[in-house]
Formats: sequence, C-alpha cells, structure tokens
Amino acid sequence: MTSVDDVSRPSRLAEPDEAISVEELQLAARNHGIPLEALRYDVTPAGLHYLLIHYDIPDVDPATHALTVDGAVDRPLTVDLAELRSRPRVTHRVTLECAGNGRALLRPRPVSQPWLVEAVGNAEWTGTPLAPLLRSAGLDPDAVDVVFTGADHGVERGVEQDYRRALPVADALRDEVLLAYEMNGAPLLPQHGAPLRLIVPGWYGMAHVKWLRGITVLTEPFDGYQNAVAYRLRDDADDPGVPVTRIEPRALVRPPGFPDFMSRARVLRPGRCTLDGRAWSGHAPVASVEVTTDGGDTWAPAVLDPPTGGEWAWRRWRFEWTAEPGRHVLGARATDASGRGQPVGQAWNRGGFANNMVQRVEVVVPVE
Amino acid sequence: MTSVDDVSRPSRLAEPDEAISVEELQLAARNHGIPLEALRYDVTPAGLHYLLIHYDIPDVDPATHALTVDGAVDRPLTVDLAELRSRPRVTHRVTLECAGNGRALLRPRPVSQPWLVEAVGNAEWTGTPLAPLLRSAGLDPDAVDVVFTGADHGVERGVEQDYRRALPVADALRDEVLLAYEMNGAPLLPQHGAPLRLIVPGWYGMAHVKWLRGITVLTEPFDGYQNAVAYRLRDDADDPGVPVTRIEPRALVRPPGFPDFMSRARVLRPGRCTLDGRAWSGHAPVASVEVTTDGGDTWAPAVLDPPTGGEWAWRRWRFEWTAEPGRHVLGARATDASGRGQPVGQAWNRGGFANNMVQRVEVVVPVE
Repeated sequence: MTSVDDVSRPSRLAEPDEAISVEELQLAARNHGIPLEALRYDVTPAGLHYLLIHYDIPDVDPATHALTVDGAVDRPLTVDLAELRSRPRVTHRVTLECAGNGRALLRPRPVSQPWLVEAVGNAEWTGTPLAPLLRSAGLDPDAVDVVFTGADHGVERGVEQDYRRALPVADALRDEVLLAYEMNGAPLLPQHGAPLRLIVPGWYGMAHVKWLRGITVLTEPFDGYQNAVAYRLRDDADDPGVPVTRIEPRALVRPPGFPDFMSRARVLRPGRCTLDGRAWSGHAPVASVEVTTDGGDTWAPAVLDPPTGGEWAWRRWRFEWTAEPGRHVLGARATDASGRGQPVGQAWNRGGFANNMVQRVEVVVPVE
Repeated sequence: MTSVDDVSRPSRLAEPDEAISVEELQLAARNHGIPLEALRYDVTPAGLHYLLIHYDIPDVDPATHALTVDGAVDRPLTVDLAELRSRPRVTHRVTLECAGNGRALLRPRPVSQPWLVEAVGNAEWTGTPLAPLLRSAGLDPDAVDVVFTGADHGVERGVEQDYRRALPVADALRDEVLLAYEMNGAPLLPQHGAPLRLIVPGWYGMAHVKWLRGITVLTEPFDGYQNAVAYRLRDDADDPGVPVTRIEPRALVRPPGFPDFMSRARVLRPGRCTLDGRAWSGHAPVASVEVTTDGGDTWAPAVLDPPTGGEWAWRRWRFEWTAEPGRHVLGARATDASGRGQPVGQAWNRGGFANNMVQRVEVVVPVE
C-alpha cells in the first residue's frame, strides 16, 4: 500500500567510508551557505545569507496573510500585516546560524543537510516585538510553551507536518523577540519567510519560524516533532537528549588571498597582511578571539573591532600576520563573556547540532 | 618549493563507485541552484537565481569602477558607470543556465561543480547595448574575437587568471547583448556581478562575464583558458573539442505536492491536478513540451502559456493529470523551433557541459 512512509526514512549516520550522497547533495544545492568572502560585509546582502528550508518555500499572499494567536489566552486574535506594520517598529541586527552548521565535518557524519562551516549570516530584521501582542491576547498565567506555526508543509522522518516550533514562554516574552516583516530594509524575500517570520536573537535558526501564520499558547510542554524529536542533542538514537537552544560561540576566518576553483585552497602572496573575520555567540557577548596560523598548535590574540549593531550581531576581528612561503592552516576561536569557547577537535552528537569546531583554512604562500 | 600548483589539480572523472567528494560539496554549498518550487515565479526573485562563481566574489567599488575598451579599436575608451547609465537603457528578460547543469547526474561523473538540474533562473537585466559602444570605439575590420575580463581572480587547473571569456565578434555585436547594471529593477547584487556584467541572451552562463572591467578586441582567436581549455565539449582529455555556446532546450517540472525533507521525494494527494513548469532554449523559441508520468515510457503534449517577456525568457507549460495512488516518475521535454530536443538517456562529454537529459521527479500518491 503506497503511503507517506514510502518517501521518508529514519535518521542515520554515514558509514565510516561513505562519501556525500545524492540526497545530501540535493539539500546542498537548495540550501546555500554564505560564500566565505562575504564575511567582508558587516550586513549580509540579500541572497548571500545562509538558507535552510525544511520543505518547500510556500506561496503566501501578503495581501491576505493573517497571523492567529490562540490557545491558552483570554482573547484569541487574528492580525494582518497592515496591523502588524502599524504597531511599534523595531530593527535588530542579528547573526543567524543553522544549528546543523559544521555537520558534514563530523565523524561519523549524521546524514542530513551537509553544512561545512558556512551556515551563517548577519542581517537587519525589522518588525514589531512579540511580547506586547502576546500580552494583549491575555496570556494564561499557567502558560508553559508558545508554539509558532509556519505555512510550510512536508514530511520528515515519516512525520507529515507543518513546520512548528515552540519556545518556553519566558523566552517568547523577551523584549528582543520580533515578528519580522523586513530584512535589510526591504520586505522579506520568499526564502526568508515572506511575509512574516519570527526572529529570536541569540538562538539557532530553527527557532526563527518562517512564513509564520499561527501562535498557540500551551499550558504544558509542546511535544511536536521539531522540539521533541529533531532539534535535540543526543548521544544515540535512544537518548531523549536536551533541546538545542542558543548559538555556541564561533569565529570564522575570511579566507585571504585568492582561491583555486576546485579545491577552494587559497593562494596568498608572502609578506605582511591583515587577516580578518567575524565572531559571534548567542549566549553572551564575544569576549576574545584567538587566531592560529599553524593548524591549532599555537594561538595568538586577535583585535576585536568595536561592536556594530548591538549585542546580537557578529563582530569583526583582525590579526596582523606575516605570511612566509609554505603551507599554513588558519583558524580562529571565539570565547564569550559566559566563558564558552570553541573546541579544536570535535564534540559529537547524533544530530550534528551546535557543533562549533574550529574552521581550517588551507593557505599556500608561494615563493615569489 | 611551494607554488600555485600546490592548490590546483588536473580535471578528472569520478571512479565508478565514487560518491560526491568534500571538494564538490564545498562548491555546492557556495553555488546554489534555484529551489525547484521557485519555478512558480515568472521572474526569479533575488537570491533564488542560480549562481556559479569560479573564484571569490570580488569587492568592486561602483563609485570608481570603470570599463576599458581596447585592443584592435581606433579609439580606446574608458567609461564609468554614470556614463553607461546615461546611454540608451534596455531591459531584457533572460533565462540563464549554467553550462554544467546536470553534471552530477552523468556517469562517469566529471568532478566539478556538482549540479543536478537546478542551475537556472529567469531575470530582468537592464543595461545598455554593447554594440554601439564597440562601434564608437572603432572596431578593426579584421576583428575576430572580443574578450571580456572580470575583476575576479583565481587559479583553475593550475592556471592563475582573471576570469576572461571571448565572444566571436558577430555574436558580440548582436543587438540583444547588454552591459547590464540592474537585475530585476535593482542594482546588481555582489554575487551577480555588481556593478557591471555582460548579458548574452541565449548563451550558457559562462559567457555572461560578471564584475566586467575590460573589453579587448582581437584580430585572432582568443586562446585564453575559459575558451580554449575549460568550456569545450570533448570526448576525452586529448580531444580539442568544440566550444560551448548556446543553451540546449530544457523543460523542468515544478515538483507537485509536498516534499520529504531528506529525500526530496514528493507526496501528492490523489485526484486531478495541474502539473506545470518552465521550458527554454537558447537556439530558437520553444515549440512544444511533452510530459511523462511514467518515467519516460509514454509522453503527452503539454499546453504552452503565451510567452511573457520576449524570446530569451522561459515559458510556462501546463499539463492536466489525474494522480492515481502509487509511485510515479514525472518528467518533461522541450523541443525548440530549430528541431533540437532533449534526450531521456544521457549524452556525455568530459566536462559535463550542455547536458539536457530529462529530469526525474519521484512522486508518491498515497491511498486516501
């Protein structure tokens, strides 16, 4: 009997010698990362910000789109975009990173969207704060979770669903959480959630529900797929695990010099140069960045530029280096004000989430 | 001795059992295709158009950018963007496809950017026609090739180069060839060649040189890498081959129903539905599209919508279908007015270029 189960299989780990599959490639061809040279832009331009779309980009008409607020509230609401736009308007510059960033570098490799290190972007999101809208609906004092539902629909590991993610009520009520309708000063692009999405500064991308159409307040924990099954840190398939929440610290190097087309290895002329890149954390402000030019054997402090754009945006760092002829492996690691840092080796979990292993940038400095 | 050659290796074919490599994945994470559901848009929105960037996106300042015209001309020119914008302004809607589209489906697989079927987009490009500028420079009557140089720089198969491609002079002088500074009504995005690129309607993407900074007229054939080595249809590494030029006909199906996250296989409810998609050719207008719902065993004609946007833009096609429970493999094939069509099986060349094998869209129709 033909059924939805015929298109969907359980999660799995790649075999030790298994290279990237065509299924992983299909995802990589859709869900692109930031080209690393675009770390030069303080605000990531349209089309260069990373994208992770679970199902299809839905076709939502902004003229008729409405957001419902229901569940454990005194006064269920329905608001359209015009009404949301008439409410107080706020812009936050926010670094968004996919929880699966770095997954394809893990051994064993969880078979899913095969990110290397590029699933990040830093954009300006404009909208209206969520908390006043929730309060105007009259939150039940026993509210526990707030569930956000998108207009995107698909199957995942055998479960047919609308994309739906919950936040604990205390997190949903944080001042900086936005119902966003603009990105970088323009209406949201279809792939970024047009006409309305959630922005939860500091959290990995799965919390920033796109194509937002419904908010439901619950008085007990949400047990939907994306919270209870998908985005959890587990040691093995039977481990109930813990939820994926905020972004772990990470620094990326903007690759210097110029690339080889196929290997992406870099060629850099010998002599003095300034290395730079970006660093961020969803837990606390970035406190320091260190740089290695020898694959992690030694580290030296980078200089942090002043913050541009508030506490949720990445910061540029710089490092003066004299490139000597030879092969070098560059990397950077961030430490945040909470004391969290980045491992040089891998921490591993079965979903490949929240992995912030240090990047490796291979550079050849030729003899002139 | 460390040298540029250390980052770059010769072209190669994958072994029969070789899956996608990390190098191919790196390219797939940067150079994204159109998500196939975006075939719904007549004009591809920003960020959803395919991208193929050989090296890095260069950092070009539009305020100081200038285009030089030199070589076999009477009056070498330098023009800035303000001057180009003051010249006659033309908009063409153009379907652009990467010459390597479909490469990763070939057996054996040429190891390069691993496209499946998604390296396409249809945008509105605004700029000024090239021919009057060339004529005002005074073309040598013996001119043979016109070379276009971009600001992007890298290494490819051991050859360090600025990206540089030539057109035969007769092709460069075609009315529809543009020096484009806008895409979809906005200034070019960095990844699409800001602030200036070439648009050669009907040709594969390699001809539409991005970040255009120089035009050089030659009285003998151009022997640079991208014309003489890279973009050629060859049977084997020793075959001099023939140049890749215009886009072969292709039709794509917009996948119906909804997807499984991992496999991208589709679930479609049983009953009547309208399949649709797009079809294009760079040789001649699309004359007909046929659809298969049984993996190519039988074909039936689709209905072509009226053209929208002129002779260089894709056309929508539609096909009424009754989806019966079971598994189906959908596909479409275009034939153009020159009689060119699409093979169901693969035609093969060593670079994996100009491949227009019919797409396969797997659909499961569950019993309700």
